[in-house]
Amino acid sequence: MDTPIRVTIWNEGRHDKSDPKVAAIYPDGIHGCIASVFQDDPRFSVRTATLDDPAQGLPDDVLNATDVLFWWGHCAHAEVEDELVERIWQRVMGGMGLVLLHSSHYSKINRRLMGTVCRSKWRFTDDLERIWVIEPGHPIAEGLPEFFELPLEEMYGERYDVPAPDELVFISWFSGGEVFRSGCCYRRGSGKVFYFRPGHETVPTYHDENIRKVLKNAALWAKPAGGPAPTFGKYDGIHAGEAGV
Amino acid sequence: MDTPIRVTIWNEGRHDKSDPKVAAIYPDGIHGCIASVFQDDPRFSVRTATLDDPAQGLPDDVLNATDVLFWWGHCAHAEVEDELVERIWQRVMGGMGLVLLHSSHYSKINRRLMGTVCRSKWRFTDDLERIWVIEPGHPIAEGLPEFFELPLEEMYGERYDVPAPDELVFISWFSGGEVFRSGCCYRRGSGKVFYFRPGHETVPTYHDENIRKVLKNAALWAKPAGGPAPTFGKYDGIHAGEAGV
Amino acid sequence: MDTPIRVTIWNEGRHDKSDPKVAAIYPDGIHGCIASVFQDDPRFSVRTATLDDPAQGLPDDVLNATDVLFWWGHCAHAEVEDELVERIWQRVMGGMGLVLLHSSHYSKINRRLMGTVCRSKWRFTDDLERIWVIEPGHPIAEGLPEFFELPLEEMYGERYDVPAPDELVFISWFSGGEVFRSGCCYRRGSGKVFYFRPGHETVPTYHDENIRKVLKNAALWAKPAGGPAPTFGKYDGIHAGEAGV
Amino acid sequence: MDTPIRVTIWNEGRHDKSDPKVAAIYPDGIHGCIASVFQDDPRFSVRTATLDDPAQGLPDDVLNATDVLFWWGHCAHAEVEDELVERIWQRVMGGMGLVLLHSSHYSKINRRLMGTVCRSKWRFTDDLERIWVIEPGHPIAEGLPEFFELPLEEMYGERYDVPAPDELVFISWFSGGEVFRSGCCYRRGSGKVFYFRPGHETVPTYHDENIRKVLKNAALWAKPAGGPAPTFGKYDGIHAGEAGV
Repeated sequence: MDTPIRVTIWNEGRHDKSDPKVAAIYPDGIHGCIASVFQDDPRFSVRTATLDDPAQGLPDDVLNATDVLFWWGHCAHAEVEDELVERIWQRVMGGMGLVLLHSSHYSKINRRLMGTVCRSKWRFTDDLERIWVIEPGHPIAEGLPEFFELPLEEMYGERYDVPAPDELVFISWFSGGEVFRSGCCYRRGSGKVFYFRPGHETVPTYHDENIRKVLKNAALWAKPAGGPAPTFGKYDGIHAGEAGV
Repeated sequence: MDTPIRVTIWNEGRHDKSDPKVAAIYPDGIHGCIASVFQDDPRFSVRTATLDDPAQGLPDDVLNATDVLFWWGHCAHAEVEDELVERIWQRVMGGMGLVLLHSSHYSKINRRLMGTVCRSKWRFTDDLERIWVIEPGHPIAEGLPEFFELPLEEMYGERYDVPAPDELVFISWFSGGEVFRSGCCYRRGSGKVFYFRPGHETVPTYHDENIRKVLKNAALWAKPAGGPAPTFGKYDGIHAGEAGV
Repeated sequence: MDTPIRVTIWNEGRHDKSDPKVAAIYPDGIHGCIASVFQDDPRFSVRTATLDDPAQGLPDDVLNATDVLFWWGHCAHAEVEDELVERIWQRVMGGMGLVLLHSSHYSKINRRLMGTVCRSKWRFTDDLERIWVIEPGHPIAEGLPEFFELPLEEMYGERYDVPAPDELVFISWFSGGEVFRSGCCYRRGSGKVFYFRPGHETVPTYHDENIRKVLKNAALWAKPAGGPAPTFGKYDGIHAGEAGV
Repeated sequence: MDTPIRVTIWNEGRHDKSDPKVAAIYPDGIHGCIASVFQDDPRFSVRTATLDDPAQGLPDDVLNATDVLFWWGHCAHAEVEDELVERIWQRVMGGMGLVLLHSSHYSKINRRLMGTVCRSKWRFTDDLERIWVIEPGHPIAEGLPEFFELPLEEMYGERYDVPAPDELVFISWFSGGEVFRSGCCYRRGSGKVFYFRPGHETVPTYHDENIRKVLKNAALWAKPAGGPAPTFGKYDGIHAGEAGV
């Protein structure tokens, strides 16, 4: 039996407490709702963390025991300490998976990893979102229909200023006239990064069955690969034929 | 428990019979040696097939029950029937994984899938090959060192005329002065294709432990994803909000 | 002064003759309309060719003197001779640019180059198409607004079964609820291939100013690069330090 | 006649002054040698800048009038002010081209743009470097042979920890047994970034004719594209059919 994949769901956790509308949708917090995706599946062990926990929820013993980190942030990006961003970045470089949700596109860690503006157009009025599977052969698309809808979501529209994804899994259509690259896979360092667009706090996106499939598929895809730890710096070299490897 | 991944190892199987040197290295054929990679691992079920078997080894009932097909061909590319190439291509479009080994870069099925020249430079004299892991975060690199060597291999050198791989896992260094993109991942249709360079018939490459790790990793990576079966053609469309998905 | 880029516009040329509606929109044929994009620009020399011309419009002396070939086909894909497809393919491998328009996604040459199914969903009723620029830094986007519209176009919808493009420049939004990767760049052999979605024969797409900018930009992008002609086959090698290059 | 491309060559400029060996190779500085690539070509206007110039060589009026910035840094990466790094980054996001040379892989601006470790193995003893053209159809390969050599160069070896390049043009072979992705193209924001590996200060790399071709080709490739300036933030949207674009 394989060791379970250790998933940590990090949530800013502010809207869920301050806005009764959000609290009604997510009585256990956005993190609680997402954690329930993994709870009864023996392939995973799951825990949650929020910004207002000690060490902003991710002390070393938690972060270093995380195989895949989910991240939901919005209004408090600036409060996340640079030191924590650095530790997360180091973990991704070392192989940890990172799944960035919705407004986390503008989190410090995403901006650090992407190296670009990481902004888009947005609007929250009355848009319906239709998410099309562009790569049906991608493991993150497992079990999905050709497209699925979210009856009300915040619109994010292109140009979304990020590097072209290594693999583009989803494109969203919005009823107001916009499109968005909604499922973007990146390999960074020895880690994998998946950005998944939907998830506005005032609508029950993370209760949607298709969304929950994507979250689980993303964790399986993003888990550490177990390849060689790269070495850097001065290298005397090994003569060809004497490698002993 | 997951259903085992159904692996079929297809080998041209001519050198192994006609050349005593090859037969000495691969008494059970190249296919037999590769099959032994999977034999005692419960995650896989494995069978073998060769060109001289009925239906060239891949009648519908075998091919349609294959999740990942390994392919080793060299001197008899032209004998593979176009009808079989078409059936393999259809299976890849539908999601089957395909692992193309060594001189299979010029097989009909690789040329069909790549759409390009699929040729390189080559030389078989006294080259040592050193294979560097370029993407340590890729699942095909699991368990490998930063590089490993094959003391004697046929040289393949760039320009290798194929589309830029979706993911480049390995680059080979040859003692004679050449380089080669040796581990190339492609998504084609709903399937995955991995080209892996080493494997000349007169040297014991498929007995090498690192090579065998790559083969197993490749099967795990290439297995069908289980995403939606795409539909094509005239589409009346579904009004937004009435999708019922 | 640079030598002009030699552009050839190939058009099937059947709808333009048989359908009065098409003839009214394109009195000089679709090829004539596209050729007029290049006519007064000294950076280009342009000629046209159609399926019903001798040698299907592309005898060797024309094809071999073409730097960038535009291709519009629809109802007569099957009539294009395999021998011509082979010659075009050889030219692309050797560095010629190829711009495939609209229903040419299912032409023999595109299917040969892509190696995949090359089909999509489609509908011609009353869809408005909105084309978003996804990569504003791409030369094919020069001079365009963030998005532009075609008030009536045939809908093509995902899944469009092609390899993930090397560069994705445009995504289309259709009023009926679909999306499409509408501007797809590929490097194949030593040549460049650009697929551009719009251009249904019964609507005046190639008269649109933004569309015409894209066509011109595409020709500039796709022109031969002038890199080394790769050599293939047995290679004795050159000892390091004795290259004389 | 097109407006000349405005090229600025930025050089740290320390080794050239402090090390007589470097000064002997580059009496006009590394920047002077690189500038001479562009000096007599009417397609370019060129100027130089060094770290010890006012505003570290790149006051706003210079940087904002630069279409393509070349960057050579090594021992003084840390002295480059964060404020300057930020201004360069903003310019790249806005469309400026950036060509990063040799040890500039670890410059602040490259690390900012790549979002990864940006380290490799290295050694300066007696390695010969052979640079293979992997994509002969790429404009940066114009006029080059299939490979060329530098008789003595510093070795950089994989794993080079950067995102997989959008286009990989060169792979280096080193006599000591290493390989390196030596010509890496990235699109970032609306700008283009090219990393080119060779150029150790104690060897006359920038006098080499093939290297000089690459530098010129890179400037042509990296020049601003002139696409739409993306807008970000709250977006009321434009009703389909009322775009007026």
